[in-house]
Amino acid sequence: MKLSKLFLSVAITALLANSSYAQEASKPTNEGKDLTALNETIKTIHQRKSVRNYIDKEVSKEQLEAIVRAGMAAPTAINAQPWQFLVVTDKELKAKYAEGNRQADMINKCSALIVVCGDMTIGNERSRAYWDQDCSAATENILLAAESLGLGAVWTGVFPGEERIKIVKERFGLPENIIPLCVILVGYPEGTDQPKDKWKPERLHWNKY
Amino acid sequence: MKLSKLFLSVAITALLANSSYAQEASKPTNEGKDLTALNETIKTIHQRKSVRNYIDKEVSKEQLEAIVRAGMAAPTAINAQPWQFLVVTDKELKAKYAEGNRQADMINKCSALIVVCGDMTIGNERSRAYWDQDCSAATENILLAAESLGLGAVWTGVFPGEERIKIVKERFGLPENIIPLCVILVGYPEGTDQPKDKWKPERLHWNKY
Repeated sequence: MKLSKLFLSVAITALLANSSYAQEASKPTNEGKDLTALNETIKTIHQRKSVRNYIDKEVSKEQLEAIVRAGMAAPTAINAQPWQFLVVTDKELKAKYAEGNRQADMINKCSALIVVCGDMTIGNERSRAYWDQDCSAATENILLAAESLGLGAVWTGVFPGEERIKIVKERFGLPENIIPLCVILVGYPEGTDQPKDKWKPERLHWNKY
Repeated sequence: MKLSKLFLSVAITALLANSSYAQEASKPTNEGKDLTALNETIKTIHQRKSVRNYIDKEVSKEQLEAIVRAGMAAPTAINAQPWQFLVVTDKELKAKYAEGNRQADMINKCSALIVVCGDMTIGNERSRAYWDQDCSAATENILLAAESLGLGAVWTGVFPGEERIKIVKERFGLPENIIPLCVILVGYPEGTDQPKDKWKPERLHWNKY
């Protein structure tokens, strides 16, 4: 009797596992294709990594302008474009920012800092509620543009940390209406930092959460 | 006397305008190069536009998986990866979401919705302060991946609008701990939506704000 129950259970399990629903849910859709290398843009997206180790080589002003320009191409709520970008290449200014920072070594070694800021005088009350999302999208564009040019970059968080905002504003003399979202470090990569595989199929839900 | 003062003033102005500092600040660094077309990734960044008009053609599950996978490749604070993605391709579910929405037409016409969500049970208090920035970076990756595959997409804001969050949570049955950041519409573009040139050199500050 117990044995027949076991058989029944095994049979039902096999049946369920074989049903189209179970297949649909478990079957990978890519069928062996590498979805991380479909084209150059998608490759760059997957190749991008947080680069914290730099060689001693200057990133050119032209390159920095190109990557900030990429940042400005990101979408913004109601097209308000509420950003301002401060690029710091001056060694003394970088050293001043590094003082007392636990990432001082990285900051001094990188070629440039890009401070991505929200300008609270731009847009209206409705658009301003999205300024940090807008600036985050711009930041991601900057990181991807840097990667695509063979540079390395890392996003270091500032907002919403009150103490960090205060330090960044003071050290770089930002006006009252300017809130720094983050400080991006940019440089030529040493080559030791590698991208992570963060693909988590269980976080992708189809039609039903 | 007044005339000599005027001359002095003109002379000083001319001298200043001619100084290397003034030249540095005003000289375009690109010297005629098109900084929006340096490589495929940067081209995609500048070609990306909000696509609100779609033809009647389905985006495949494989394509949707590829673009969500690109979303998961974005950086997150302390590598917490606090996201969940709900992809809605079901016509009835889309229609349900469209009800009463001023963008109903667009929602019904697009092939899929991607609801980018923050999961408040992932990470710690420190990382959670950045969940919306993390999800915004993932959203930008998704928009770029869609563009790179010849698809069109548009970011429609949800968070921090309390009423919008409530509607999205109710219509898609999202659990308590899940906060929708935005709803991305994806489809094959009709071809009418074009990218904007948003380059604003006056928003790029070198070493001093």
